[in-house]
Amino acid sequence: MVVVMRPGAAPEQVDAVVARVEAAGGSAFVSRGVQRTIVGLVGDIEAFHALNLRAMPGVGEVVRVSKPYKLVSRENHPEATTVEVAGVPIGPDTFTLIAGPCAVETPDQTLQAALMAKSAGATLMRGGAFKPRTSPYAFQGLGEKGLRILAEVRQETGLPVVTEVVDAADVALVAEWADMLQVGSRNMQNFALLQAVGSAGKPVMLKRGLSSTYEEWLMAAEYIAQRGNLDIVLCERGIRTYEKGTRFTLDIAAVPMAHSLSHLPVVVDPSHSGGKRDLVIPLSRAAIAAGADAIIVDVHPDPTAALCDGPQALYGDDLAALAKTCRDLPPMVGKKLVEQ
Amino acid sequence: MVVVMRPGAAPEQVDAVVARVEAAGGSAFVSRGVQRTIVGLVGDIEAFHALNLRAMPGVGEVVRVSKPYKLVSRENHPEATTVEVAGVPIGPDTFTLIAGPCAVETPDQTLQAALMAKSAGATLMRGGAFKPRTSPYAFQGLGEKGLRILAEVRQETGLPVVTEVVDAADVALVAEWADMLQVGSRNMQNFALLQAVGSAGKPVMLKRGLSSTYEEWLMAAEYIAQRGNLDIVLCERGIRTYEKGTRFTLDIAAVPMAHSLSHLPVVVDPSHSGGKRDLVIPLSRAAIAAGADAIIVDVHPDPTAALCDGPQALYGDDLAALAKTCRDLPPMVGKKLVEQ
Amino acid sequence: MVVVMRPGAAPEQVDAVVARVEAAGGSAFVSRGVQRTIVGLVGDIEAFHALNLRAMPGVGEVVRVSKPYKLVSRENHPEATTVEVAGVPIGPDTFTLIAGPCAVETPDQTLQAALMAKSAGATLMRGGAFKPRTSPYAFQGLGEKGLRILAEVRQETGLPVVTEVVDAADVALVAEWADMLQVGSRNMQNFALLQAVGSAGKPVMLKRGLSSTYEEWLMAAEYIAQRGNLDIVLCERGIRTYEKGTRFTLDIAAVPMAHSLSHLPVVVDPSHSGGKRDLVIPLSRAAIAAGADAIIVDVHPDPTAALCDGPQALYGDDLAALAKTCRDLPPMVGKKLVEQ
Amino acid sequence: MVVVMRPGAAPEQVDAVVARVEAAGGSAFVSRGVQRTIVGLVGDIEAFHALNLRAMPGVGEVVRVSKPYKLVSRENHPEATTVEVAGVPIGPDTFTLIAGPCAVETPDQTLQAALMAKSAGATLMRGGAFKPRTSPYAFQGLGEKGLRILAEVRQETGLPVVTEVVDAADVALVAEWADMLQVGSRNMQNFALLQAVGSAGKPVMLKRGLSSTYEEWLMAAEYIAQRGNLDIVLCERGIRTYEKGTRFTLDIAAVPMAHSLSHLPVVVDPSHSGGKRDLVIPLSRAAIAAGADAIIVDVHPDPTAALCDGPQALYGDDLAALAKTCRDLPPMVGKKLVEQ
Repeated sequence: MVVVMRPGAAPEQVDAVVARVEAAGGSAFVSRGVQRTIVGLVGDIEAFHALNLRAMPGVGEVVRVSKPYKLVSRENHPEATTVEVAGVPIGPDTFTLIAGPCAVETPDQTLQAALMAKSAGATLMRGGAFKPRTSPYAFQGLGEKGLRILAEVRQETGLPVVTEVVDAADVALVAEWADMLQVGSRNMQNFALLQAVGSAGKPVMLKRGLSSTYEEWLMAAEYIAQRGNLDIVLCERGIRTYEKGTRFTLDIAAVPMAHSLSHLPVVVDPSHSGGKRDLVIPLSRAAIAAGADAIIVDVHPDPTAALCDGPQALYGDDLAALAKTCRDLPPMVGKKLVEQ
Repeated sequence: MVVVMRPGAAPEQVDAVVARVEAAGGSAFVSRGVQRTIVGLVGDIEAFHALNLRAMPGVGEVVRVSKPYKLVSRENHPEATTVEVAGVPIGPDTFTLIAGPCAVETPDQTLQAALMAKSAGATLMRGGAFKPRTSPYAFQGLGEKGLRILAEVRQETGLPVVTEVVDAADVALVAEWADMLQVGSRNMQNFALLQAVGSAGKPVMLKRGLSSTYEEWLMAAEYIAQRGNLDIVLCERGIRTYEKGTRFTLDIAAVPMAHSLSHLPVVVDPSHSGGKRDLVIPLSRAAIAAGADAIIVDVHPDPTAALCDGPQALYGDDLAALAKTCRDLPPMVGKKLVEQ
Repeated sequence: MVVVMRPGAAPEQVDAVVARVEAAGGSAFVSRGVQRTIVGLVGDIEAFHALNLRAMPGVGEVVRVSKPYKLVSRENHPEATTVEVAGVPIGPDTFTLIAGPCAVETPDQTLQAALMAKSAGATLMRGGAFKPRTSPYAFQGLGEKGLRILAEVRQETGLPVVTEVVDAADVALVAEWADMLQVGSRNMQNFALLQAVGSAGKPVMLKRGLSSTYEEWLMAAEYIAQRGNLDIVLCERGIRTYEKGTRFTLDIAAVPMAHSLSHLPVVVDPSHSGGKRDLVIPLSRAAIAAGADAIIVDVHPDPTAALCDGPQALYGDDLAALAKTCRDLPPMVGKKLVEQ
Repeated sequence: MVVVMRPGAAPEQVDAVVARVEAAGGSAFVSRGVQRTIVGLVGDIEAFHALNLRAMPGVGEVVRVSKPYKLVSRENHPEATTVEVAGVPIGPDTFTLIAGPCAVETPDQTLQAALMAKSAGATLMRGGAFKPRTSPYAFQGLGEKGLRILAEVRQETGLPVVTEVVDAADVALVAEWADMLQVGSRNMQNFALLQAVGSAGKPVMLKRGLSSTYEEWLMAAEYIAQRGNLDIVLCERGIRTYEKGTRFTLDIAAVPMAHSLSHLPVVVDPSHSGGKRDLVIPLSRAAIAAGADAIIVDVHPDPTAALCDGPQALYGDDLAALAKTCRDLPPMVGKKLVEQ
């Protein structure tokens, strides 16, 4: 951490900063320039934050120069992590296709979607039983009944289940049925939920918030990690920008950035970011080429009848294109599709 | 709702849209233009959403022309609402100052801050016992102990208490001690929490999410209202934009916009939006002039020692400026400061 | 400027940074911490930028700690500037109303709008002869003919003219007819235009770009100032954000921020930022309360027939509300309306 | 275009809308619903815009349903265009690498960079002689001298030259030396410049503005096309968002979106969008996989000494990785690298 004093700050103001840092057990190194004095701090960064140096007289700026996350940071853990979901790996050497319906609607629709997913090369199945919806009047998911349907379909297809949990109170229930817990964008800073999934004993997929920075995303992962769970995959799903031609703006640079800042695997959601079926294949290709360890894709046997996000679901011929993409592109970036 | 067909859509495609709408109990009016055909729908809008018309062959766009929220909409409820918090009004004819510390730290700090708030003209006290923090390593609030401190300070000062609740599981506890429940920005789409505060029997202050649209904000209010609680005040607290010269960008137009879209009162938070002490008075003035029904301001007896958001807390001479602003400006917009 | 080395940077890498800075005539102060080494630089900042220290081995970050603008900076010029436009002041002690039609359409429409402006208390008239339009098919303004109409209306009403110039090649022509040159948002980084208006001998109103930071805005002003023209007023006109409920998001904090960073006067455009007539009065009030030195407002004798931005133009009873706002609010912030 | 009347709009208000449309030579089709009446318009859309229907009594919203651009629209021109730059194609069947230094500094640096570009497979050379810089104190480019250096290097290497023009007054000069004119982000809505390059007789690369929508970008292209020049390539170079971990946010979906909206080729700039050398290869891969027709990349023989944007320039081993990417990836999306 570096404290930059204002031009003309008095020597006593500099001394006061040094004294406060030292009283907190830190060390302070003073560089006096012609125009400005700079104080470099060494010690426990979090303790320094609590000192509120920014509010002291004569202080211009306080610049943080180290990362505020530790357990999920690549700086402290240079080797990339592989997360296993019921035996299916998501990690640096492989590429994993996760696919399924946005929402579980009926046993048949879920089974058909799972079979479509499998035919495209998926080794994990997605499907929502609890749906966070902007409108209280929209379909909110089948809840526990949906979890049971997912479990039956897993039985029939052999595909482990990734499903969202939206409330800390539901974590135990969802963890009982699911193979991987998903925390959605709107809940990325629901800290009670993060702590609950951190203690649930199942791998977690953490979607980036609609307007979260890389740092906030990794801090949210740190909340999970702090409870002893490092089986976390980060999911980029588009951020909110001024551009309304797509539903969200897929931040493709988030893939290499998250890989450089963290040792955790990175997944991309090409379906919810673009919000249009025609964009799913191009965005899937871009994600793989940028180094994503997995993608998570909506498929539906009859998108025009879907209760949730039908316009972006793949079906029919799309699946062959998806299968080809997932088979041919990963080797271009040193990865190999995880086979069933 | 209006369905705009693609140029060259086949008559059977138009017929299919009409048939689907009528099968769902709606009516469809077809306007055939030279280039495009447009179908206007009448009936239950939510039912139409589930039809997923956008995914039907030949459909170009589906344009919604009525508001998706009902209970909080001004269209259905033209008169502005006054919310009472333990007898203190927030509404169209008055202006209310809410002030206090960002976080409850000690009994003494909380009392001093409450007395400062009172001296500036506040009739409601803010103070956080449960703090949602980006970092798991930051001060997370005193929890129940903080609630007890707030209750004692209320006893001594007579100021009713506004405090945040961050988890649905805590709502009953917080509602027992507080006079108004605050839902923070990061939780604006924590739907379980919204439903819990909707059933808690206390007025609610709903902060706008960091990147929420007006519509999403009002839909979140609708979740609360749907549980039978219409004692909701909307709080604009700055949105996330590309500009990093301030902490967030205070969207001052949100005040007249929310007033025109909803009958609920609107509060502005000039402290957290700007993130700088020097901005609090100018932004408070702007908020009052734009028609805000209340503002909520951080004060602290010793900002340099604050455990949370010290750089933006008012103290010392700032309070006199705040008091003068709250007394002199509201009459310019037909309002009167609520007196103690 | 501060250079933060990466953790574990080699001593020779630090030495290389120091050597490069010293070779460029600067001084470097090294603080060695336990984890990181920090190098503080003193000397000619612009020269340091050219050194490209960020790309040197071992360098983590380069943090700039002083402002890159000089002539327009408040740091170097603590007293607030008053700009005079044909005798009408815009500055710290006064409040100035600028009003008129978005575009000059006919002599009669322009005269009627100018009389409306005058009746509301305006002492400067706005009106566009050259219009930058997103579509090549939209009305592009009357050009020189429009300038002549503005000059005639000035003759009849006594109101000096503020008008936009969109191309460096037109600056001499526009400067011949206008009292103040306006540089629009889309041209804020049209550097040839900035330099041309900097040499034109007329005061300049510089609108903030749609997505410009405070710093970029002030750097654009610096381009003008560098050519010897310090008669610049900064105009906040709304920034582009994700929120589409208003045309742009008026960044009200830009008023106190620009005042603290620069000695130049600050104007607010409540018409183009909100894009709705109903927002003009509330946003005008907010602007004055936040300390704006002037506002610039669209008026039109018949908004439904306007060739440009009709939906936001004031007319009829709006003018009395505007007049009252401009008379009553400035004294609340120590200012006085400039009288005709 | 569709006019949606407010709920309860009077029949005379509807009639007034119809009358105004018909007076302008259009046709209007009225659909009366239970809650709302909708009027569909057929005829000259631009003429309807001038009618300012939005401001008429009883009108709620005016929804445009056709594209405002014509010449560059894919709707009117379904076949994808190939633009030839001195014989080098940029179009649907090929992939073209454009590379070179950000700025021309010396003959030697430019030649070295061009040779590096060529070694990586480039068939077009980029290089800036006129540099738009945020600061008036930064290196502004060598101007005409830079153009001459580029021409000499073209002579030696055989690589045609792409270079930026920043002022309408310079277009003739730049067009004399360059093979393709580049319009930069900051000038995307400098309409005088767009018209000038539209008349210059050379192909144009049009960079998307920092916060431009797809529609504004295509409207800017329409300005160029309107002057008779359809040899335009669209360049996505990152948009401005809240995320500051990268310089800009590369909007990868802009590639398939621009291809679906327009028949023009699409280029991606992975260097300026990310702003970091480590991101250039992953973003290049993503761009190719998403279907880009070309990429434009910064290279520099000595990035640490670059006068402009050194931190993002490729050098050394990066070039082999770039070459491999440009050779191996295009066939995955049905394209083939243009060979020298």
